[in-house]
Amino acid sequence: MTPFSHRKADTVAALGEERLISAIRRWLGDVSPPAPLGIGDDCAILPASKKAQAITVDPVIYRRHFDDSIPPCAVGAKLLKRNLSDLAAMGAKPRAAVVALTLDPRTRLDWLEKFYRGLAACARTYNLAIVGGDVAQADKILAASLTLIGEASGSRMLTRAGARSGDWIYVTGPLGGSLLGKHHRFTPRLSEGAWLAAHPEVRAMMDLSDGLAKDLHALTPSNAEPALDPALIPISPAARKLARDSKRTPLAHALGDGEDFELLFAVRKNSNRASFEKTWLRHFRQPLYCIGNFVSIGKRPAGSIDLNAHRGYEHLR
Amino acid sequence: MTPFSHRKADTVAALGEERLISAIRRWLGDVSPPAPLGIGDDCAILPASKKAQAITVDPVIYRRHFDDSIPPCAVGAKLLKRNLSDLAAMGAKPRAAVVALTLDPRTRLDWLEKFYRGLAACARTYNLAIVGGDVAQADKILAASLTLIGEASGSRMLTRAGARSGDWIYVTGPLGGSLLGKHHRFTPRLSEGAWLAAHPEVRAMMDLSDGLAKDLHALTPSNAEPALDPALIPISPAARKLARDSKRTPLAHALGDGEDFELLFAVRKNSNRASFEKTWLRHFRQPLYCIGNFVSIGKRPAGSIDLNAHRGYEHLR
Repeated sequence: MTPFSHRKADTVAALGEERLISAIRRWLGDVSPPAPLGIGDDCAILPASKKAQAITVDPVIYRRHFDDSIPPCAVGAKLLKRNLSDLAAMGAKPRAAVVALTLDPRTRLDWLEKFYRGLAACARTYNLAIVGGDVAQADKILAASLTLIGEASGSRMLTRAGARSGDWIYVTGPLGGSLLGKHHRFTPRLSEGAWLAAHPEVRAMMDLSDGLAKDLHALTPSNAEPALDPALIPISPAARKLARDSKRTPLAHALGDGEDFELLFAVRKNSNRASFEKTWLRHFRQPLYCIGNFVSIGKRPAGSIDLNAHRGYEHLR
Repeated sequence: MTPFSHRKADTVAALGEERLISAIRRWLGDVSPPAPLGIGDDCAILPASKKAQAITVDPVIYRRHFDDSIPPCAVGAKLLKRNLSDLAAMGAKPRAAVVALTLDPRTRLDWLEKFYRGLAACARTYNLAIVGGDVAQADKILAASLTLIGEASGSRMLTRAGARSGDWIYVTGPLGGSLLGKHHRFTPRLSEGAWLAAHPEVRAMMDLSDGLAKDLHALTPSNAEPALDPALIPISPAARKLARDSKRTPLAHALGDGEDFELLFAVRKNSNRASFEKTWLRHFRQPLYCIGNFVSIGKRPAGSIDLNAHRGYEHLR
């Protein structure tokens, strides 16, 4: 569905700002609390919490993160889920979000309604409120930026720092080929992230958004390098499918494709991995994948993956 | 200064994403705390606070909120100050902000550096940290959206609700003509907002962004209407200047122009206004302006302003 129309009656310009904001509150329904806890005052008030808060922001931009082929409700859900994946990476749970919308006055009202209803349905699933936002006009743009606030689901939040040489490297699911649909159909790994943060074996965690080959650097201790076993990388069926036409290997897709939205984490080298993985399987259907470990620089075994030969998603090119 | 260049060496495309983010951290300097309290992890962690939090989001968009005539450092400051004005309207003080940047790869690095340095200087003035953000690429766009988190500076936050029929209507400064420079040179009324929230005479408050004629509706109790005395409206010199060419009266500019960024508030009808105003003057150089009061619907005295004859700034037209 294309988001723009030249028939003014079909567009946001027919409504004007005030009525548009009323419509947005109606579309959001019960995930939009009354002011001042939600939309309608200069700020939204978020009740006090005893915990540290986690903040993240990510946008969706027309022709960049979605196009006419993605249903608008899926665009709304993707906007929230991209941010939820960042919370999952800390072992945090969501509390509230604000949405800054930038749109061309020719934006179709029915596109926008489906976008907000998709966003609301997703917010409802994850039990968070959409508490505020902004609507700004600009030519030939349709973009929304969501800022998400959460807090630890247990006693700690996990960061990217903390892995050590010798630690095992894990991912929560098969990688690559997200472009074929997972990029907007994925489930953010919130329960998984919370479970992992509650287990002291896990020392560091992040989510995979730009491809394993690129993202893994951020988890790698400064005195180490990753030694990944090519036979252990879980390759998604979509990565295999893409490889048929792309002249790249399925493994190259698994290492290089963006928007996996799986969790990548490091497990303490002396932990009882068998017991850790077995306990995991009591809670989650999909197994954990141990794909290698961190070794001292220069000690990467023969046959392990040379990540310099692979690239993740490059922005600003 | 125009923000785009066709010489790749001058643009963000020459740097790529990772080096651009490093540059942004350098430009932000000491207002960018180390991860996970700042940029560099999946989320930024904000330490626990005993107080309720206030959240607001506002953007600046090229050709909408700024153009080539505004220095980039002033654009950065304006982005933050627009949001600070919303916190001021609650009597809140700022804690932390995240910035979502959307830019064309042809965006000039020196423009962006000045933008971030202007933002950082402003953040330093108001003692808040820039803790995170996102950089996304899109064609022919330069926009930044800032989400600001704050908390009550005293024991309460003030909302737009709470004014009653009979209450006095005040503003903190002269109105109109912001277009001539105040729209980016204004000082957000944070100290004033904090002072007003600490005084129980004040029942409701908001900031003026779309013009008094439009914004005042949000403060008006449902059983009342505002009775404004045209002789009491403080008209800025810029409004008078604009009126010389615009074929509108200075008063029309004061009532209708956007981006005043002054505070508008209601004072309990039985308060000792003389003492209230005198105490104010011990703290602030600029006097308070009482511009009228709320009266029962239909009881507006002859000679008071008919707000229906005036319009504020209309979005999405």
